[in-house]
This record gives sequence, C-alpha cells and structure tokens, in this order.
Amino acid sequence: MAFARDYDPQPFHLDEAAARASLFGDLCASGWHTAAHLIRGIIVTRAQPNGEGMVKGGRRAVYGPSPGFRDLRWLKPVYVGDTISYRGRLIEKVDLKTRPNRGLLASAMQGRNQRGEIVFAVTSLILADRREPLPG
Amino acid sequence: MAFARDYDPQPFHLDEAAARASLFGDLCASGWHTAAHLIRGIIVTRAQPNGEGMVKGGRRAVYGPSPGFRDLRWLKPVYVGDTISYRGRLIEKVDLKTRPNRGLLASAMQGRNQRGEIVFAVTSLILADRREPLPG
Repeated sequence: MAFARDYDPQPFHLDEAAARASLFGDLCASGWHTAAHLIRGIIVTRAQPNGEGMVKGGRRAVYGPSPGFRDLRWLKPVYVGDTISYRGRLIEKVDLKTRPNRGLLASAMQGRNQRGEIVFAVTSLILADRREPLPG
Repeated sequence: MAFARDYDPQPFHLDEAAARASLFGDLCASGWHTAAHLIRGIIVTRAQPNGEGMVKGGRRAVYGPSPGFRDLRWLKPVYVGDTISYRGRLIEKVDLKTRPNRGLLASAMQGRNQRGEIVFAVTSLILADRREPLPG
C-alpha cells in the first residue's frame, strides 16, 4: 500500500472495501510494485559471486544499464499474503560490433505465486561487459 | 535514491563517486522510478474531472486495470535535478466483443526532460468501460 500510495493510487490497491467491490475482488498490489520486486531480485542475485563460474575459471559478466523491457504482462492479480517467485531464462545474446567486449542479453522473466500461477511476465534487456577471467 | 535503495540498488543510482565513474557520468534515477512517476501522473490526471467532456455531455470512461505494457524504453539517463514532462497519445482502441461496454486503450507515452530530450517511452494498455452520460 505504501508503494501504491506513492506511485499507483488506485482504489483497488489502497482500500479494502473498494477492492472487494472491484474486478479484482480483494486488495492487490500495484503491478509496478511486482515489477520493482523483480528488479530488486535481479540486482541482488547477480551481485552474489557465482561459485560454479569461479570454479570453472569462467569470465564474470559485469552488468550495465538496461535500454528497456519488452512485453510486460500482468496476468493475474497479486493479493495480500501472496508469495511471488521469479525465474529468468536467457533467450538471446546480441554482440555489439562496435564494442567487442559488450553485448545485449535478453531474458524472459516470469513471476509465479504460491499456487504456481504465472502472475507476471516480461522480457528484460540488459547490457553486459565480458571482463577478465576471475582470479584463482 | 530512496526508490533505488528499495528496488534498484545499483551503484550509479546510489553513490555519487560510483556514478561519476560509470557509463552515466553522474547520479541518475532508476528507470523504474521514472516509470512509476509516469503511472502516478496517469492516475492523478485521469481522476480530475474532464470539464470539456462534461460541457459536451460526453460519456466518461471508467478506467480499469492494465493487462501490461509494450516496449518500455529508457532512452537517456534522468539526472538529479532533471524535470520530466510526460505526454500520451491514444494510438489504438480495441472493442471487446464479449463485453460491449468495455475496451482496451493503447497509448504511446513519452517523457521528456527540461531540454526537450526524450528520456522514456512506453506503450501502455489500459482497460476502460464506457459508462452513462455525465449528469448536467
């Protein structure tokens, strides 16, 4: 509700009685709040060292900014008390001819609730640099 | 920075020195913060009575939820102190055969900074109901 108050002040995000009378039938999160949670998950997860990659002596990607997202879909409401788990699958890698160490990664991301229903989907685009092999 | 701390904790959104050393060259807003500001603007603006429509005796649309967005693009960074103005243009109306009073509105939205540069673009999809003519 704090998020909705700041950025998406619609009755079905803020008022229980209004939400019950709405299409949603109950209080639910702003879809932008669901999206923002995914972003936090991406940032936090990729900041963790990739142990498997280090063992293999692989190169660690350094993620840059995102030029945008494609096809953001809110497929079902996210209600109070729901737990959303996100997954991403790399679907495309585009080399940038002008920057041999840089590329664009496209990933299909999905969020599912505790009943396994897909509530959120988006295709993310993120720039990444390939850096030197990891030490050790 | 409060938004970025909660939802997009990347150095170029949170730390001045790190931002200066980054591709962006200076502290800039999370792109999701820019998007959230547009959403607030849409919600607040459409809640205001449409005087012109009332004079014409037109029907007022009642906006429902959004099934999603298409082609969200961050075209330039939004720096500290920038002022972003948003505009939207209706580009498509889709009638829903099953619900004669309901339709899907697609709008091309853009955000420009104080120098007139487009920093943000997205195509929004919103469900709307056509209701009875306004009183008066």
